Amino acid sequence: MSVYTHVSESELAAWLRSYSIGDLAALEPVASGIENTNYFVTTTQGRYVLTLFERLPADQLPFYLGLMARLARHGIPCPAPIANLSDHYLAKLNGKPAALVTRLSGSSIERPGAQECGELGALLARMHLAGRSYSEYLDNPRGPKWWRAAARDVRPVLDSARQALLDEELRFQSLYRFPDLPRGPVHADLFRDNALFEGGRISGVIDFYFAGVDCLLFDLAVCANDWCLVDVRRDRSLDPEKTRAMLRAYAQLRPLTALERGAWPVMLRAAALRFWLSRLHDLHLPRAGVLVHAHDPEHFREVLALRTAAAETPWVD
Amino acid sequence: MSVYTHVSESELAAWLRSYSIGDLAALEPVASGIENTNYFVTTTQGRYVLTLFERLPADQLPFYLGLMARLARHGIPCPAPIANLSDHYLAKLNGKPAALVTRLSGSSIERPGAQECGELGALLARMHLAGRSYSEYLDNPRGPKWWRAAARDVRPVLDSARQALLDEELRFQSLYRFPDLPRGPVHADLFRDNALFEGGRISGVIDFYFAGVDCLLFDLAVCANDWCLVDVRRDRSLDPEKTRAMLRAYAQLRPLTALERGAWPVMLRAAALRFWLSRLHDLHLPRAGVLVHAHDPEHFREVLALRTAAAETPWVD
Repeated sequence: MSVYTHVSESELAAWLRSYSIGDLAALEPVASGIENTNYFVTTTQGRYVLTLFERLPADQLPFYLGLMARLARHGIPCPAPIANLSDHYLAKLNGKPAALVTRLSGSSIERPGAQECGELGALLARMHLAGRSYSEYLDNPRGPKWWRAAARDVRPVLDSARQALLDEELRFQSLYRFPDLPRGPVHADLFRDNALFEGGRISGVIDFYFAGVDCLLFDLAVCANDWCLVDVRRDRSLDPEKTRAMLRAYAQLRPLTALERGAWPVMLRAAALRFWLSRLHDLHLPRAGVLVHAHDPEHFREVLALRTAAAETPWVD
Repeated sequence: MSVYTHVSESELAAWLRSYSIGDLAALEPVASGIENTNYFVTTTQGRYVLTLFERLPADQLPFYLGLMARLARHGIPCPAPIANLSDHYLAKLNGKPAALVTRLSGSSIERPGAQECGELGALLARMHLAGRSYSEYLDNPRGPKWWRAAARDVRPVLDSARQALLDEELRFQSLYRFPDLPRGPVHADLFRDNALFEGGRISGVIDFYFAGVDCLLFDLAVCANDWCLVDVRRDRSLDPEKTRAMLRAYAQLRPLTALERGAWPVMLRAAALRFWLSRLHDLHLPRAGVLVHAHDPEHFREVLALRTAAAETPWVD
């Protein structure tokens, strides 16, 4: 499916000689993933994920790998990049920049309850606290500047009602700039399929390749919009119990500022807008050679429309 | 037994608030260990070992923790230090410098066969290769300089035959200086109880608090003298099959130089001397307040005596 670059066992075995993780035992292509080629790699030492970066800008890769390494150093259960004998996380493999990271156990859950939403909130807070010491900088590549560019691209294919929603949301968001909100490295894509659970606990947070520096609250809004829905298909409004569980667990570790509490409804809309736009973009302007199973943009149009109804913004008591 | 500094659950729970590893779930003192106070710590995130450094020189601690972090970064299964929110590996707890490291699974094996000796040899080579990029320096604290000081201390309590063996070995070793042998960070204490196995594979190497920079071959000699004996109680000569398995597996990853092959018999004697001396020292000059179950020095006197019999030095074919 999304293996763009083929790696043979003998190619990988040779490449692994520049690492300290033993001999290759098994190699298995990973079907999911859009931006990169991924393989599960098992060696005599352990289980890893090999990623060949197909189209992420090369100058952004050190930010992602450095962030994972930093979080792992703080005990966050995220993939830990493995350095090669030259002490680099990145090396060329079959012409592509490639990296090995540890493979985490556990599996994602489709229908999280309040308990799991609380788990996620706590982990997100710990990630944000641990990330504060990370000094590399990458502006969130899917931030406001990107929204405007993407909106220009997709606007022509929308009907007039959707154009109006988009225009109004861009106008609304442009009224808000939050220079005083706490900022730092955010995952920015922590959907349910990017969190692994084991025995009721989060055992892993994966896929940091949309990470960047942004308002920490934006990360929380992305999570709420995916984890805390009443029903992901039938009712995309926020479930008060799940949302409260997530926010409470988060705020217990990193108390939210008054400004953040005030910005919450705006941020929920911003997070919905960002994914509505990217799904529209993936659907209507697919990149050449990228075999994307495009997610339905309508899901996030509806999330956005619901979030603009100001009544439903359950908050930490 | 060797808990010198008591840590209560509430003290630890408070201390853990400066880490990103969740809430305290369980705290259990570790009976083994001589130099430090150790606790097994379980949090909502995972399993850790808490170490309070009781008497290791404070200026050596960053070398040990940095080395473990460096090796873990390269995928070596060693305890990975966890940084706190100030991004430090070391912090004070109850007045002592303290560190949290990941707790590895597996258990040590008392009677390794050739297969396990091969596993260890391969892992040692990978550690040495991974350690090459580590730039911190600490002269092996139990190196030749320490031998001479320790010998002065213990010589008076030895009978004349043992004095003669000690004098002769110090003289013999002083004839050999190996400035051209490959050097780097060595574990220097990788006895059977410091390696964990799981499913026939090494799952962990622990206790880096005797590490330092020395000849890499010294590490191999320490291991051979403990892992490759014919019988640890009845015949302390090197078992050819086990020794060959260890050396072959090592040399496959880091081929030994001609100089190293020549130095092997000398290094086996040096490694025996170092542990004979430290055991004599622990037995006859125990440090105040240190509850050491002193190991029998006679074991290593016999190992040393056997190694001086030049006939038995099985080598890589």
